[in-house]
Amino acid sequence: MYVAVMGYGTVGSGVVEVFNKNHESIVRRSTQPSLELKYILDLRDFPGDENEEKFIKDFNIILHDDEVKIVVETMGGLHPAFEFVSQLLCAGKSVVTSNKELVAAKGYELLQMAQEHNVNFLFEASVGGGIPIIRPITQCLAANEIDEIAGILNGTTNFILTMMIEKNMTFSDALKLAQDNGYAEKDPTADVEGHDACRKICILASLCFGKHVYPESVHTEGISGIALEDVAYVQSGGGVIKLLGCAKRQPGGKISAIVSPAVVQNGSQLASVRDVFNAILVRGDAIGDVVFYGRGAGKLPTASAVVADVIDCAKHVQRKKAFGWGPSEENYVVDYRTLPVALYVRAEVNNREETLAAVREAVGEVRVLSREGAPENEVAFFTETDVEQTLCDKLAAVPGLHVRSQIRITDY
Amino acid sequence: MYVAVMGYGTVGSGVVEVFNKNHESIVRRSTQPSLELKYILDLRDFPGDENEEKFIKDFNIILHDDEVKIVVETMGGLHPAFEFVSQLLCAGKSVVTSNKELVAAKGYELLQMAQEHNVNFLFEASVGGGIPIIRPITQCLAANEIDEIAGILNGTTNFILTMMIEKNMTFSDALKLAQDNGYAEKDPTADVEGHDACRKICILASLCFGKHVYPESVHTEGISGIALEDVAYVQSGGGVIKLLGCAKRQPGGKISAIVSPAVVQNGSQLASVRDVFNAILVRGDAIGDVVFYGRGAGKLPTASAVVADVIDCAKHVQRKKAFGWGPSEENYVVDYRTLPVALYVRAEVNNREETLAAVREAVGEVRVLSREGAPENEVAFFTETDVEQTLCDKLAAVPGLHVRSQIRITDY
Repeated sequence: MYVAVMGYGTVGSGVVEVFNKNHESIVRRSTQPSLELKYILDLRDFPGDENEEKFIKDFNIILHDDEVKIVVETMGGLHPAFEFVSQLLCAGKSVVTSNKELVAAKGYELLQMAQEHNVNFLFEASVGGGIPIIRPITQCLAANEIDEIAGILNGTTNFILTMMIEKNMTFSDALKLAQDNGYAEKDPTADVEGHDACRKICILASLCFGKHVYPESVHTEGISGIALEDVAYVQSGGGVIKLLGCAKRQPGGKISAIVSPAVVQNGSQLASVRDVFNAILVRGDAIGDVVFYGRGAGKLPTASAVVADVIDCAKHVQRKKAFGWGPSEENYVVDYRTLPVALYVRAEVNNREETLAAVREAVGEVRVLSREGAPENEVAFFTETDVEQTLCDKLAAVPGLHVRSQIRITDY
Repeated sequence: MYVAVMGYGTVGSGVVEVFNKNHESIVRRSTQPSLELKYILDLRDFPGDENEEKFIKDFNIILHDDEVKIVVETMGGLHPAFEFVSQLLCAGKSVVTSNKELVAAKGYELLQMAQEHNVNFLFEASVGGGIPIIRPITQCLAANEIDEIAGILNGTTNFILTMMIEKNMTFSDALKLAQDNGYAEKDPTADVEGHDACRKICILASLCFGKHVYPESVHTEGISGIALEDVAYVQSGGGVIKLLGCAKRQPGGKISAIVSPAVVQNGSQLASVRDVFNAILVRGDAIGDVVFYGRGAGKLPTASAVVADVIDCAKHVQRKKAFGWGPSEENYVVDYRTLPVALYVRAEVNNREETLAAVREAVGEVRVLSREGAPENEVAFFTETDVEQTLCDKLAAVPGLHVRSQIRITDY
């Protein structure tokens, strides 16, 4: 049986490396007599590469080669990945991808095509890098109704927040360090503004709750507004700030889904996730909380997830995986402002005690936080739970309270 | 398609509960037109139970009913579970079990029978309760060579250690609390002496490294010898004491495997696993460290893992799972005393400074630990790494050093 890889970037070259390195055991586990790499599609040249003779530049060679049964898509981006993958599935080839943008935008369509043509479309590597999460959710937790899922889904932002928390670095210094280490791209927008995490929570929510969740429907906030003052206040309150993607079953067949910085209490399994690591918490009705932890990105971890999917495709050529991922629905994701939440708030005030009294009158009891070196005109506190919009409106109406920062508090 | 459950204890009744509660989605995920519970085998009577009409006392009814394709074994113990499961597999029925004793002792034999008769023998619930671990290891991490696996595999002992660490309770008080809470049995030997964890690391090691590892070949120490003094010293050294099961690839196609209390450094994902929770760390050559966390025991978590296996059996009646779990080999597990290790040591001494100088002369640099209220004649320290037997011999030869406690230090 033959395999082709499309895109020889970080992940694609990692796939080829893992495939070659552990080739013997991979073939054995595939239960196929042989499993060989035939083509690598990339428009660039790689002179001297040990797989040089396998490089091609014309997609149609793969599409029309009947010996190629499994194609790995590691090009990234929506186009032409979507067109290529569609054509491959319709030509009766199984496709494995690490491309979260593709899966988040077109997952339902592509799964439909795969089903119609009796092939597999697998995407374990699209969320959590090498952390097994898609298969555990769809298979191991199949006896559960999953109620909630939340995760640290982006390693770059978790690295930046870790540096802010542990080394007292500012956001921009930590971002620069992440860039120097190769963890963040030159244009870090997709990571730091939460778009990458948003695609991942969309994929997870689609799998857990059964209907396609589009990134456009998920309220997304990044971490570029987090100040060291906030890190210090939250720490004094017994927590840490993490960028979380969360989705939860809501009444009436709806769900909530959001990506934003969040206060996680120390002692939570998510609080101790440092550096570039990711972790995903799944809350099921029978199992309770389960957490999956590991490297959410990186060449070899991600490649190992891709290759595991390739092995699965090779093992089960005839069988198509049933993911239970249906089409979307209008207003499927409820407005986050209508949901209950507790908030961390930092504000400028004229008269500390007077304003805090007014805050308490407006929103009920608050837990006042402290930090070393705080100026006289600064307050920070944790509120009780209330509907988010109501809470914000009440805070906005407090005279003399100028909110500078506001972060949701989670119960994970 | 029909299912039977053998053994209506905690897990068995949980299986029936989850099966009934989430029946609609379970049938949908099984891709079968129907999936119904036909029999519950138990020698006891359950008058008034809502499944009363399904109870039977004769195993042969299940064995000879051709409509029953999947049988759940939740009786526990080796006999008659082994005889029943063997007969069922040979009669062409798939079997799902949560029985770690059975899998640890007979896993290879039963998998062979399943293969010969083209049925499935699945046991996700036998390790880590509801935590997905068997399937992630065998499928999701299939592109990796797994080098090492380590876990907090027993919830009862983790609860006891948590109470000792956080509430300063003695071992016997914490054990009593565990018994009062229903976490520990009247006879707690299997838990506190590490036998339960031993069976689980045997199952994991057999899966990860490909040859059956028998419990008898694994050196096993429990936690009944841990004193509050040790807890305090290790805490001052920046760690916690956990009962770990560990297995690791060794040169020459051998492995190491051990169950014992271990010092885990704070900051490790295993250190923050509290209460009755379990966590399993897998170290692969491509993925690096992955950790799976959740409830390692309990009625519904364990039941949810069993039912997920039932769904898998129903989905793939024709396909047998390949686990790559081969027969054992003589001297497959190397003697733990020949392996390098660093130790935590607590001892009685006559002359503190003199003895510590002699210790340093014997084993090299040590890191001396402290605790509040320590008597004059007590020392505790972390050693550097050396072959365990060598280290122990050297310490035994130090004049005036009377070792009272000794715990291995891990690098997880």
